[in-house]
Amino acid sequence: MQDQIIDVLKKAQGYISGEEISRPLKISRAAIWKNMQELRKEGYEIVAVPHLGYRLEAVPDKLLPREIQCGLGTRIMGREVVYYDTVTSTMDVAFHLGAQGAKEGTLICAESQSKGRGRMGRSWNSQRAKGIFMSIILRPRFSPSDVAKLTLLSAVAVCEAVKQVSGVSATIKWPNDLLVNNNKLAGILTELHAEMDRVRFVVIGIGLNVNTPLNQLPANATSLKHETQKAVSRVVLLQEILRRLDQWYIELNEKGFPPVIRRWKELSSTLGRRVRIVDQSGEVEGVAVDLDEHGGLLIRRDTGLMVKRMSGDVVQV
Amino acid sequence: MQDQIIDVLKKAQGYISGEEISRPLKISRAAIWKNMQELRKEGYEIVAVPHLGYRLEAVPDKLLPREIQCGLGTRIMGREVVYYDTVTSTMDVAFHLGAQGAKEGTLICAESQSKGRGRMGRSWNSQRAKGIFMSIILRPRFSPSDVAKLTLLSAVAVCEAVKQVSGVSATIKWPNDLLVNNNKLAGILTELHAEMDRVRFVVIGIGLNVNTPLNQLPANATSLKHETQKAVSRVVLLQEILRRLDQWYIELNEKGFPPVIRRWKELSSTLGRRVRIVDQSGEVEGVAVDLDEHGGLLIRRDTGLMVKRMSGDVVQV
Repeated sequence: MQDQIIDVLKKAQGYISGEEISRPLKISRAAIWKNMQELRKEGYEIVAVPHLGYRLEAVPDKLLPREIQCGLGTRIMGREVVYYDTVTSTMDVAFHLGAQGAKEGTLICAESQSKGRGRMGRSWNSQRAKGIFMSIILRPRFSPSDVAKLTLLSAVAVCEAVKQVSGVSATIKWPNDLLVNNNKLAGILTELHAEMDRVRFVVIGIGLNVNTPLNQLPANATSLKHETQKAVSRVVLLQEILRRLDQWYIELNEKGFPPVIRRWKELSSTLGRRVRIVDQSGEVEGVAVDLDEHGGLLIRRDTGLMVKRMSGDVVQV
Repeated sequence: MQDQIIDVLKKAQGYISGEEISRPLKISRAAIWKNMQELRKEGYEIVAVPHLGYRLEAVPDKLLPREIQCGLGTRIMGREVVYYDTVTSTMDVAFHLGAQGAKEGTLICAESQSKGRGRMGRSWNSQRAKGIFMSIILRPRFSPSDVAKLTLLSAVAVCEAVKQVSGVSATIKWPNDLLVNNNKLAGILTELHAEMDRVRFVVIGIGLNVNTPLNQLPANATSLKHETQKAVSRVVLLQEILRRLDQWYIELNEKGFPPVIRRWKELSSTLGRRVRIVDQSGEVEGVAVDLDEHGGLLIRRDTGLMVKRMSGDVVQV
């Protein structure tokens, strides 16, 4: 009912009488009043003026499911939204829900995380009301070895959404970072629950510094607000991320990986650069020359030998 | 306290007075009596005779943590035991606990499962008090591509434990079944939670038909009781499985995969046989000639072409 009231208030674009709200929704004016109180508690600023009625002055700066889903228009992503004010990590929740059979495209988002995480067991700065901390459950029908494709796809989607909504041109550092002038704007984390040759589900985690002041971020990090010097609507940005993820995921399923790779190469700052990569097998240095068909990075060492890495820490030297 | 009382009763090997129990444990005889009542509710048969005292007549036919851990002597496996009478699936619990940081070697076992599962989303027959349904959480320090090794290791451990405790010689059908005369005795399921190049944790699931009557099993299945015509203690068998897993896992970490492969080949009925394997990439038929260093099966097709499979459904033709 509150969703419907907000819908009516948004469409009104000005004052609307209690009568005009209550009639189509078939509820009493007392019920309207009670719901208005609830909505105000959530942070909606609703002005009530005698003889004029109600007017929606401002929506809260929160990632509320009803705001995210309003006009979203996706086929898969965010059709279900699970929202937390605070959570240990949206990844933890996603794995729990994924194991219980949550639908593909289920979005878990939070205002803050007490144990936000990055790759390799590292933590991810997740302060309140400043960033986007989200996880998406996917159920691709390919094998575990192809899951790296989703990391690249997600990087493309986030990069495009950031450009569209804020105008900021970020670049993708293989495999999972978005950079602006070599400072980290966002990280993407891909984890999976799998049998030997079958993905049960994948969780894509995205951490994006939206309105975070620089002094609340680690060194070599940046935020959209810092780059543009103005606040960016997190809801609008999250919606655009979901739309781009939706489009690219459908394209991946229909046309395969090549279109994703092509777009990734346009947006990446890694290819053609000299890189040093550290992973469990050790360190390798050389020129990042290409991606292979699984999303692995091909590096030409100074000896001329080509090596491939599926993941690792990259220093662009 | 109940663990300590059972310990004392087991060591007594006959009657022991309330006084003799209560003194070392420093509790009242009334408390002893109360604990005895609780133990009887769990299924322990404790006889009490005036002037003689208490005697342990029988332990319950349940996979109680205190029974499993009594004299276990492992370094990693089963140091923590989580026990359920009924659970959806021990795999589900293991993934939940694994994500929360449960220790390596944590055992989850249950008397029955309402949604016991096998590979590829199939179900696993999990009736009450007849089989062993268990999951073990492991945190190996190798990459996701090496996890198949743990399937083979587990098959070896279970096969050896079955032989030791029941005398039944089962053979291993690649990748994850134990057979007796071509009938299925046990299945092993390996699932993992991983990042791209890092295992967060692995869960090994084992389903073993111990005392299940044939008419409660699917076609082409068998149980130890059917094979030996007598009941097998599930606790003793489970303990031996944990010990063998412990030994082989420590050996894997110290000496690598070759000793596991060698033992697997001795116990397997797949190598040298003509097989047909169906997986997501289609069907392949030929002679199973060898394992590769990751635990993949090498098949020589009739054209002479060698192909490798990491998993799939095998028909030994």
